[in-house]
This record gives sequence, structure tokens and C-alpha cells, in this order.
Amino acid sequence: MTIKYPNGQGFDPAQSNKRAVHRPSQGHRGMSLESELNQANQFYLQNGVANIHKKPTPIQIVNVDYPKRSAAKISEAYFRQASTTDYNGIYQGRYLDFDAKETASQTSFPLSNVHQHQIDHLADIKRLGGLSFFIIRFTKRGETYLIDSSLLIDSWQHRQETRKSVPYAEIVKHGFLIPTGLRPILPYLNAVDQLIAAH
Amino acid sequence: MTIKYPNGQGFDPAQSNKRAVHRPSQGHRGMSLESELNQANQFYLQNGVANIHKKPTPIQIVNVDYPKRSAAKISEAYFRQASTTDYNGIYQGRYLDFDAKETASQTSFPLSNVHQHQIDHLADIKRLGGLSFFIIRFTKRGETYLIDSSLLIDSWQHRQETRKSVPYAEIVKHGFLIPTGLRPILPYLNAVDQLIAAH
Repeated sequence: MTIKYPNGQGFDPAQSNKRAVHRPSQGHRGMSLESELNQANQFYLQNGVANIHKKPTPIQIVNVDYPKRSAAKISEAYFRQASTTDYNGIYQGRYLDFDAKETASQTSFPLSNVHQHQIDHLADIKRLGGLSFFIIRFTKRGETYLIDSSLLIDSWQHRQETRKSVPYAEIVKHGFLIPTGLRPILPYLNAVDQLIAAH
Repeated sequence: MTIKYPNGQGFDPAQSNKRAVHRPSQGHRGMSLESELNQANQFYLQNGVANIHKKPTPIQIVNVDYPKRSAAKISEAYFRQASTTDYNGIYQGRYLDFDAKETASQTSFPLSNVHQHQIDHLADIKRLGGLSFFIIRFTKRGETYLIDSSLLIDSWQHRQETRKSVPYAEIVKHGFLIPTGLRPILPYLNAVDQLIAAH
């Protein structure tokens, strides 16, 4: 399978899986949550508002070829499990750390989208005084929420006993809706401001 | 060229270049600065002191094979230029960001080890209220210093006019020596405490 990158963007295996997911019927047409976050981060960086980046996908490199007069070529490598979340950086002098998730469900956010290491990492960040949260998009609703990691940590800890998802209504109640903007399209730091104010 | 990883560690091209560098005659025998930082970060994480990680090497993936009944194999990929530094995280409620460099020189730290994007990134982090610094090891001296990014930013800005390196004496004067410890071997957060106290 060959994948071409006319835009010079890296390949993200998680992203490629999302191609099978139904796109929302209204809003956010054609742009993934990840693309919108990258665009927002670039906007915030260029305007001196924040310095937040997506971490590269962790790769285990096994074999590298060094052809003459051209760039080193990795000819065998494998995807590794990350031990942290995808995004971190600094805003308002605070350390900020989050993961972004999309779901096609309209009624709840399935906890199968979340991994133990992400929960552990975000709980640790919170304990150390950082802002830790999830950005969750309900693709069919075209709605994106920022929710503090504590809601998902609680749900995660009780997932065996009770339920295996967080109801949409609970995310609406405890989360902060990120309305679509123009520059950037996803002005998620407005929701971070609300999160800071609520603390 | 085939590279084997009995320890399950990832391959770092920068690291592989360092194999040609002379090892220090005293101290730090056989362990690179990167290995010691990774060990220190793991120690700090496990003891709940800080949450600091090295970012994965950025890779541009071009081709992925999906063999039946085994893991996806990346069969063509290239190293990309990073836009940030290698390390970031949270300590004492603060955002912290740094790069680590080794030099075989005994008299100065050559600025050829530093890239424009690293300087720009660390200057931006400082402006936004984060701690930004370099950890520099003089391999032949077996000495490792933490220096605030401002010293290197200044030297970088004047590198065309005056000199192309930062003298060892200046690093000793303005930096914080990191004495070798037992657990961790490189207790660099002690030097970060000094950096915080000096502000």
C-alpha cells in the first residue's frame, strides 16, 4: 500500500483509520479534528498566544539505508505504543496536555477510544498542577467539546462496574463547547480559558 | 545497514553519529547524555516528581505494508526536521522545555551544534513564561551543565559578528553544574531548582 503526501504532511495511522468514519453532515466538512488542531496551533504560535504541538508518532526503527547522494531511507520500522498523549505545550504560563478524539456515536463517547496510558498520563499531569483535558468531537453532530480529564478519569475507573461510555448529555453538561471560528477554525483556547476560570 | 535493538530502544540518528565521538576518560562511561536523561525522566516520573519526556524523532512515512497476521510494517520513511526541542514536560507546576547537546571540545561549546528552530522555539517558550534551557555535556571533561537559553540566544544573535562558540568559562560562570548521582545518575532537576531560584 502506497500513500502519497502532496502536502508534505506526515502519515498518522490513527488518522488513516478515520477515513472510514462518516463525515459530519454539517460543519467541519473535509477537515479532520487533527487538521483543525494543527491549524489552530500554528495560528496561536504565529500570533504569540501559545506554543502547543502535536508529538510525532513514535516509531521503532529497525533498518536504515544510506544511499549515495540522497537522504537516509528508513526501510523497516514499526509503530510503537505512545506513553503520553498527543498534544502538549504552554499557554498563559501553564503547562497544558491533551488528547483529541472523534466519535461517530451521537449518544455517548465510547471509552474504547481511550487507553490506560492516556488516563494515567493525564491524571499525573493534573496532580502536578497542569491543565489536562480531552477534546472530543461528535462527528455526526458536528460538535466539539473540551472536557477536563477528571470526567473521563472518573468514568474510566467505574467502567467495569457500570457503563462503558460517557453519555453525550454529561459531556454537554460538564464540557465546554468549542464553536467553529474563522481564524482559527477551532479556537479551542477559548474553551481552555473557560476551563481555567472554572477552577 | 542493519541495526539491531536487543534492548527494545528506538533508533536515534543523532545518537548513532555520536558513536564516533570520544568517550570521556572519567565519569559517564558508556552512557550517553540521552540515555541518562531518559533514565532520570523515568525516575522522576515513577517518583511523582515531574512528568518530562523526550519527543519521538519526526518521521515522514511514505509506504506501509500490512502483512497478514502481523504488525503493520513501514517500508519507506525519511527523517524530518523537528520544529521544536527534544524534551518538554511539567515540574513544580511549570512548563519546562530543553535540548541536550554533547561536545568533544574542552574549551567551548560550538554553536554549530545548535539550529535556528531550536533558538526560536526556546526564545518563544521563555517569552510565554516557561523554563527554557540547554543541557550541555563536555564529554572529555565528563562535566554536564544546565544553562538558561538566554545565554545561547545572545551568543547565537552575535555569532556572525564575533564568535561561533560559547567559551567553556562562560558556561561554568552562568550555568549550573549537574554533579553525577546514583538515582538518577543525572539529577538535572536539582539544577532546574537553582535556575528557578536564580530568577
